[in-house]
Amino acid sequence: MTDSLARRCLAGDPRAVARLISLLEDGDRDAYGVLAALKERAGMAQIIGITGPPGAGKSTLTDKMIAEFRARGLTVGVIAVDPSSPFSGGAILGDRLRMQGHATDPGVFIRSLASRGRLGGLSKATAFATRALEAAGYDIVIVETVGVGQSEIDIVKVADTVVLIAVPGLGDDIQAIKAGIMEIGDVFVVNKADRDGADRVVREIRAMLETQAMLQKGRAVAAGPDTLAARNAEILHHGLADMRAETPQPDGERVDLPPVIKTVAETGEGVPELCAEILSRFAADKASGALDERRHKAIVAQLKDLVGWQVAEYFAERERDGRVEALARAVQHRTLDIYSAARELFSALVKGEEP
Amino acid sequence: MTDSLARRCLAGDPRAVARLISLLEDGDRDAYGVLAALKERAGMAQIIGITGPPGAGKSTLTDKMIAEFRARGLTVGVIAVDPSSPFSGGAILGDRLRMQGHATDPGVFIRSLASRGRLGGLSKATAFATRALEAAGYDIVIVETVGVGQSEIDIVKVADTVVLIAVPGLGDDIQAIKAGIMEIGDVFVVNKADRDGADRVVREIRAMLETQAMLQKGRAVAAGPDTLAARNAEILHHGLADMRAETPQPDGERVDLPPVIKTVAETGEGVPELCAEILSRFAADKASGALDERRHKAIVAQLKDLVGWQVAEYFAERERDGRVEALARAVQHRTLDIYSAARELFSALVKGEEP
Repeated sequence: MTDSLARRCLAGDPRAVARLISLLEDGDRDAYGVLAALKERAGMAQIIGITGPPGAGKSTLTDKMIAEFRARGLTVGVIAVDPSSPFSGGAILGDRLRMQGHATDPGVFIRSLASRGRLGGLSKATAFATRALEAAGYDIVIVETVGVGQSEIDIVKVADTVVLIAVPGLGDDIQAIKAGIMEIGDVFVVNKADRDGADRVVREIRAMLETQAMLQKGRAVAAGPDTLAARNAEILHHGLADMRAETPQPDGERVDLPPVIKTVAETGEGVPELCAEILSRFAADKASGALDERRHKAIVAQLKDLVGWQVAEYFAERERDGRVEALARAVQHRTLDIYSAARELFSALVKGEEP
Repeated sequence: MTDSLARRCLAGDPRAVARLISLLEDGDRDAYGVLAALKERAGMAQIIGITGPPGAGKSTLTDKMIAEFRARGLTVGVIAVDPSSPFSGGAILGDRLRMQGHATDPGVFIRSLASRGRLGGLSKATAFATRALEAAGYDIVIVETVGVGQSEIDIVKVADTVVLIAVPGLGDDIQAIKAGIMEIGDVFVVNKADRDGADRVVREIRAMLETQAMLQKGRAVAAGPDTLAARNAEILHHGLADMRAETPQPDGERVDLPPVIKTVAETGEGVPELCAEILSRFAADKASGALDERRHKAIVAQLKDLVGWQVAEYFAERERDGRVEALARAVQHRTLDIYSAARELFSALVKGEEP
């Protein structure tokens, strides 16, 4: 099974890829073997993370980006992630239907992921599915996540380029671009840019990026994210006019700030510029070595996650087979101390792995 | 070192206990050995968790409870935990000074813990320090934590009895008693009960406990915490008068709700009743087997934490010694896939443990 599935994935058979992702979602051990067999393609795709608040138009934008990348001759795989949905379906289903325009294009693969309450949850499923699409030879892999909770932060562990989307008029959408989130953005998009207030949102984001760049230059490093958050809150509260006067400008230095691009996803306006920017940033990062450095950090973070998930899985197994139960009872009856019990369990977990 | 420190702890030498807790805080391996040698005392103390919002008067109440337990001939160890402080000091130092009245009493031991940014952080340090005090033979161990973030939830992993403190007039303090928090309380305290609105807070807590008890009886189990949270929000919003009329009362059954006790910590009013309640609940739980069941669950949860901490520690070591670095590089150069790398790391971690 393993060999033929791996071969079919490498050949780009979409049904094989879909099957592999399902197996990975179900935690099938053999599926990990398939992924291992696919390592020759690791790191070949450009992985783009797209995130933003609900209602920012992420799916429509993704849809238009697919068309733009296809027009440039690139194949595209999409993973749509919805951490709020316990089932595949709901909003995701609607989004998938919206992207059905690409249903007959063999150069496009779209897959939704929703939490099934498994260990490691969506982060794990997303990391796995991304690798599977990369192995299947897609030039571009887009991971689209709703900007809630932990998911925006986790996306830096898989994406080479993170696109943060804001829209005017959502009220709290810019507020949602908090210190920690701003830092992960490589390209910023103000979607629905035909609405009132779009230019203001662009200016606010630029002001925040300038502040961030200055702080990172070491002027207030010790103060860190708190200072940045406070500064951003000020920008939002007082508006830009007040800030400009008192914001110290970098003394003659040019800072390379992430671009802020206006789009109207419904009409496709700004999408060619956005895609061009994403591709050229990737090429520049590749040339400068920044991409290698970034991927190295991401691999370390994923290794840590993988080890943690492995341990959590084995612990759950030892709970099912009664080993944890027996050790806990021994601790309770004082025939064993809890630290020795933990160490024994730790060893048992590993022996369980290698029979 | 290990043997003599263990012996001195079992003999109740407070300097030995203080030394052991410091070693445990610093992650000293030998200190775990000392704890293992102390297992004969495991489970001998009653561990009381005290939590509530900042400003609820936890420290003053703890101070008065110490005096009450001492008057009953019981020895008391106290762990004061402040997750918000990166250093021992600040609010905790003030609290310690407040408890200095017991400084010359050999039957009382008080220790503050604050996050030092270590792996496992405060949960780990708290669990360890609690075991150390238990081993030193204190009859009562009080763990006092500020009710912020995760700490109230973690306290059920160490405490036999959880005391939740509210006060009138804080505005959002009752709001802070959310669905998840209500469930962990064994005894509820309305402190500063000489203030206006104390009786209202008592009634609100009782109403929430009734709702919770009904939901737990299965009337709306499927809906779970959300229903409970919604119901609690209603109680807070509309006040009790409206609720009473529409709250379905248990049909003639008496439900054993946790007690809600009014105290004025400054004067000591209500403290004898509170301590009596805590002691009699513990005795009843011991007799009914409920304590055994609760401790069993707590031990399983702690085992899981301990295994997780162990893994995190080894991962950090392998990061320092370059092993993670080398594996990540191999993945990046496609000579290894990330899943095999994770498995290799997992095995390496364990071999590192057993030389």
